[in-house]
Amino acid sequence: MSNITKKVSWSSRGDELGAAGEGTPLLNGSEQPRHSRQVQLSLDYDNIENQLFLEEERRMSFTGFRCLEISRWLICGLIGLLTGLIACVIDIVVEKLAGYKYEAIKQNIERFTEVGGLSISLILWAVLNFSFVMVGSILVAFFEPVAAGSGIPQIKCYLNGVKVPRVVRLKTLVVKVCGVICSVVGGLAVGKEGPMIHSGAVVAAGVSQGRSTTLKKDLMIFEYFRRDTEKRDFVSAGAAAGVSAAFGAPVGGVLFSLEEGASFWNQMLTWRIFFASMISTFTLNFVLSIYHNNTGDLSNPGLINFGRFESENLNYNLYEIPLFIAMGAIGGVLGALFNVLNYWLTIFRIRYVHRPCLQVMEAMLVAAVTATVSFTMIYFSNDCQPLDSEHAEEYPLQLFCADGEYNSMATTFFNTPERSVRSLFHNQPGTWNPLTLGLFTLTYFFLACWTYGLAVSAGVFIPSLLIGAAWGRLCGIWLASIASIWADPGKYALIGAAAQLGGIVRMTLSLTVILVEATGNVTYGLPIMLVLLTAKIVGDYFQEGLYDIHIKLQSVPFLHWEAPATSHWLTAREVMSSPVTCLNRIEKVGTIVDVLSNTSTNHNGFPVVMQPAKLCGLILRSQLIVLLKHKVFVELAGSRLSRRKLQLKDFRDAYPRFPPIQSIHVSQDERECLMDLTEFMNPTPYTVPQETSLPRVFKLFRALGLRHLVVVDDANRVIGLVTRKDLARYHLGKYGLEELHLAQT
Amino acid sequence: MSNITKKVSWSSRGDELGAAGEGTPLLNGSEQPRHSRQVQLSLDYDNIENQLFLEEERRMSFTGFRCLEISRWLICGLIGLLTGLIACVIDIVVEKLAGYKYEAIKQNIERFTEVGGLSISLILWAVLNFSFVMVGSILVAFFEPVAAGSGIPQIKCYLNGVKVPRVVRLKTLVVKVCGVICSVVGGLAVGKEGPMIHSGAVVAAGVSQGRSTTLKKDLMIFEYFRRDTEKRDFVSAGAAAGVSAAFGAPVGGVLFSLEEGASFWNQMLTWRIFFASMISTFTLNFVLSIYHNNTGDLSNPGLINFGRFESENLNYNLYEIPLFIAMGAIGGVLGALFNVLNYWLTIFRIRYVHRPCLQVMEAMLVAAVTATVSFTMIYFSNDCQPLDSEHAEEYPLQLFCADGEYNSMATTFFNTPERSVRSLFHNQPGTWNPLTLGLFTLTYFFLACWTYGLAVSAGVFIPSLLIGAAWGRLCGIWLASIASIWADPGKYALIGAAAQLGGIVRMTLSLTVILVEATGNVTYGLPIMLVLLTAKIVGDYFQEGLYDIHIKLQSVPFLHWEAPATSHWLTAREVMSSPVTCLNRIEKVGTIVDVLSNTSTNHNGFPVVMQPAKLCGLILRSQLIVLLKHKVFVELAGSRLSRRKLQLKDFRDAYPRFPPIQSIHVSQDERECLMDLTEFMNPTPYTVPQETSLPRVFKLFRALGLRHLVVVDDANRVIGLVTRKDLARYHLGKYGLEELHLAQT
Repeated sequence: MSNITKKVSWSSRGDELGAAGEGTPLLNGSEQPRHSRQVQLSLDYDNIENQLFLEEERRMSFTGFRCLEISRWLICGLIGLLTGLIACVIDIVVEKLAGYKYEAIKQNIERFTEVGGLSISLILWAVLNFSFVMVGSILVAFFEPVAAGSGIPQIKCYLNGVKVPRVVRLKTLVVKVCGVICSVVGGLAVGKEGPMIHSGAVVAAGVSQGRSTTLKKDLMIFEYFRRDTEKRDFVSAGAAAGVSAAFGAPVGGVLFSLEEGASFWNQMLTWRIFFASMISTFTLNFVLSIYHNNTGDLSNPGLINFGRFESENLNYNLYEIPLFIAMGAIGGVLGALFNVLNYWLTIFRIRYVHRPCLQVMEAMLVAAVTATVSFTMIYFSNDCQPLDSEHAEEYPLQLFCADGEYNSMATTFFNTPERSVRSLFHNQPGTWNPLTLGLFTLTYFFLACWTYGLAVSAGVFIPSLLIGAAWGRLCGIWLASIASIWADPGKYALIGAAAQLGGIVRMTLSLTVILVEATGNVTYGLPIMLVLLTAKIVGDYFQEGLYDIHIKLQSVPFLHWEAPATSHWLTAREVMSSPVTCLNRIEKVGTIVDVLSNTSTNHNGFPVVMQPAKLCGLILRSQLIVLLKHKVFVELAGSRLSRRKLQLKDFRDAYPRFPPIQSIHVSQDERECLMDLTEFMNPTPYTVPQETSLPRVFKLFRALGLRHLVVVDDANRVIGLVTRKDLARYHLGKYGLEELHLAQT
Repeated sequence: MSNITKKVSWSSRGDELGAAGEGTPLLNGSEQPRHSRQVQLSLDYDNIENQLFLEEERRMSFTGFRCLEISRWLICGLIGLLTGLIACVIDIVVEKLAGYKYEAIKQNIERFTEVGGLSISLILWAVLNFSFVMVGSILVAFFEPVAAGSGIPQIKCYLNGVKVPRVVRLKTLVVKVCGVICSVVGGLAVGKEGPMIHSGAVVAAGVSQGRSTTLKKDLMIFEYFRRDTEKRDFVSAGAAAGVSAAFGAPVGGVLFSLEEGASFWNQMLTWRIFFASMISTFTLNFVLSIYHNNTGDLSNPGLINFGRFESENLNYNLYEIPLFIAMGAIGGVLGALFNVLNYWLTIFRIRYVHRPCLQVMEAMLVAAVTATVSFTMIYFSNDCQPLDSEHAEEYPLQLFCADGEYNSMATTFFNTPERSVRSLFHNQPGTWNPLTLGLFTLTYFFLACWTYGLAVSAGVFIPSLLIGAAWGRLCGIWLASIASIWADPGKYALIGAAAQLGGIVRMTLSLTVILVEATGNVTYGLPIMLVLLTAKIVGDYFQEGLYDIHIKLQSVPFLHWEAPATSHWLTAREVMSSPVTCLNRIEKVGTIVDVLSNTSTNHNGFPVVMQPAKLCGLILRSQLIVLLKHKVFVELAGSRLSRRKLQLKDFRDAYPRFPPIQSIHVSQDERECLMDLTEFMNPTPYTVPQETSLPRVFKLFRALGLRHLVVVDDANRVIGLVTRKDLARYHLGKYGLEELHLAQT
């Protein structure tokens, strides 16, 4: 796989791949020309604590800290509010546009059903889908490729400590929102929920910095938060707010953020994340209640709402639990199949479909095929059901059914996927023929699989739920035909949906809570949990989760929760990169420029040593660049220039887009000057002795959010440096510890 | 306060206090004679990784790790099951006994209402309460003082890393369960929910070790888990299962454990904790449904059930939110008042009520007073309400009311507190006179305050909810009299209950989720959160939370989440203990015995050095004791004795009750032998340079669960040792950083 992984980047662009395998220094990629490279940087948490920073902290009074804390709460409230509003916009626009679309097609079909010529309806449907998807796909492919897909893998990486360039920019947000509207309205087998998580994260990154580089507007507030640690905390709040708005699941949102992002559990942070989530779901709920003209009816907390599962009707019994577990296993197998197919498809896309125009064409093809398949399925279905005034369908298609009846295949295909899911959960027994459901599952499975990975903004949650709900309901119908005690297939639809989703994404704790919150019934907690657990165990046997596959295909140095279990025999000495480029405390400018320009020393942090090789600090590439840019030099003679003293503000203003070393001009004279790093380096970097075991090193990295760990011998001399990539190489395969070949990013 | 804090221990026994202030080495206290000392030890997480351990880990195959993982799941399932069953037992026994009691008193009152002589009823009531409380109190005071109270402060300490002796023993569990039944049936102003958390923790500690030292039974399973890290993980699962069973809140339970216990968020662990919680609430629900003869009706997930809040009836509007926040502020003030009063009372108790017999007498006095006050209130109340067949009261007292009416004061006083809370939430508007509610709030407030801290097993959750629900409903009635839009006082009862509970215990995230899960309605999430937040902010202005007060009174080295904000100017050098007792790698037995016996070197860990003072490892007191016990000596001549090679098993068998150094006899000859510590010490202890700032040291401690951190200079020479107590000293007071004087424990 290493051959492949070396050639991939988030945008899946072939023309950008040349350099990746050749060891170019991929730092500061975010400043390189757009579309030229898509690389992953790591966030830096650990080494902010230099003398300037400590001085500021020491100067700050108790009141100062309190003000900071209040600002954090304020920002989180704002994140929740804006995320909620974005969710509202998406929801309302999608509903409106989809309404127009389905209304138009429905009228058209009704007109042509009697007289013949339904092919015109098909063409109308296909063209409508086609156009919407084209707009969405062009936006994504040409303007912001990182907005493709659900964004969850990118956010997972970001929260893990790997920075995907441009992933939290305003432009990405705009493209994402427009893109998701287009793809959902365009009738693709996608959901609008996943992208909410990404949107929330972007909102958070923007609001917390108090400025927008894209809009070139700096409000001069929240400057304290312009560093990786703080920004990441807010981004996790934003992601939580996104989940919360998408599923009406504030607690699930918090758990999602923690599951994906938390390293060290911080109570105040969690509490703020929860606040953002609450505000987000409340805003969505409130605005939608006004929009639907029943202000104050807070029963729509999320974009998707599973409807109310009343425990009286939908009870389960102890003896049903084995059935649920079996369904979980089915979900695991089907999920793994989905992932394998999608993996192959992704490899194919990486190799052959890498130009934006090709990507747009593929998306349009999928849109057309989706419309055609849906139409064909509806056309040839003869599953007619009486129109029920109570459970009125939104767009009932009569087609060839008798008067007062409607085509039940159309309830699943001719509808937004969210509504289809809800119908599958709650419609009366007997609403669908088993054949209808079977055919629907089959076609939708392949459509969804084909769709994921297209250059459109779209999520995989809802299609997964829909597939699962369909075969789950099928199971329910089948069980009901065996014995009448299993009367309600809706319950099995829910379990099937959970199993399928779990089998595909393999999230565990947070997904249980999200689903429980979406059903609004805690009674289903245990079955859903068991189902997700089974799906995960079974699915993991065959293939990784969908997000992990896509993360791995980018060869991101993603750190899992714990070091592989069997890695105790590895020590820091074996894992570390060595030799390390060290800098002297007083170093020649020329040396520093050479080190930074040298493509083989592509580390982000450099140990600072006193002779002989004794560690006295650690300095970051970004800090050195700011120093060079401001020419903080000491002349060779030792007489200090009347240079302006560098402030913490200078570092913050440069954050997060530090210029590349190539853009900084250093004259030959200046090369001979010296730089005193004492004030700017972190004087107390984390160190470990060389015999430290890998799990211990790993734990330090994960628990403290480290980026660089200096390995020293017993006289405190630098002998190596462990970076995130050194750790991410080790991986527990089926047969024990494996070493991955990560791309040279 | 430091004068006081020095004199307190968990059992609040005066006769044990003498030694505490005098710097006796309080290690291995758990092995000292019962009742003689109640000390806190710290758990050790960090230093297990010695050569023996690493060898075992390296020998272990991939399958071995998988088996361990499966055992962990098994244990968690078992913990959930047993905790659920214990909750069932408590619930059923309390309901039965309380039923008999109230039935008997009711009949007695009815008999004497007409003919006069109600004083006989009062005496009957008082005597019944009296006897139950006496039994419970004797159990606690004489047999296991650590079972007093709710146990939540103790579990908080345990999860924080401080070990309270005997807190997770089987005997404690038995006393706790019997004690809580007696005190609830005895009519005290207490709940049975808090103790469930402690019970769950004890179950977990027992099950996970595969043996009971009390019963002298070793099943020889789960030996791998016989160390602090693993045991603590299981205890946090147990605590979560306890919360889950108490409130029907599995997610709340997980969050409780995380809030109180987690340092490093571990996904698999959290998932297992969730599993235990789910099983626990499911078991309780299932067994109770069988008991109540409607098998499969899973609507009683917890000991307390707030009943169903239907969103149609009990909606809230945006303009009500300021009202909720105001109620939160009231809750904060009342909670702080409660805490201040209880603080004084506790000080009084520590000084004067320290003998078991006095404690029992106080408990009996409170029982009698509670009965008398309740009776008086009911007797003089003339708030009669028509008997409503729909909302039938469990024990309606007619007393002096007309036929078909009942005394409404009796619904609050003449009932288990859980039922009273539910009535306050759900009864029709107009069920109570405002006067009745006001009087009830006032008396119950003082009764509850007096009760908390008695030598009985009992929780403070339900009384707090009850007080809050009463004044909340009062607010609701008052609002309804102003404008009819605030029609339903039940909603305000809920908000008041949340405010009062939040004001007393100051839990935040987990409490919100617990309350939301208990109401079964996610719509109330935002108001409850805002109310709890307000209550916390307002309350913290006056006084700490109740649990924190009690923890502080024990002068436990409890570490909060973050270092105080203004502590950046402190460095490791200023914080550390120095000089440190170091041991040589090959050390004389006599020296080791002297070091361990020396009362002034009461550390639990000792740096191991090579000459000259260069750090090469860290060894724990417990490890040294095991080595001494097994006489792992090297003779002076250098010829090794044919000693048995010490196995990891020897350490595990001794865990957790290591013998005190006094019990180990070392002859004069043996004193001259040498001990080679190389194999047993942790060869790579965590170290920091002396300039490291306090927040950074703090973060290392919290994130990695450290116990000892060696401070070294730039040549890796030991210059100090930071322990948990060194960090716990610093505390953010109202006016900035304060240094506490912790007792010399």
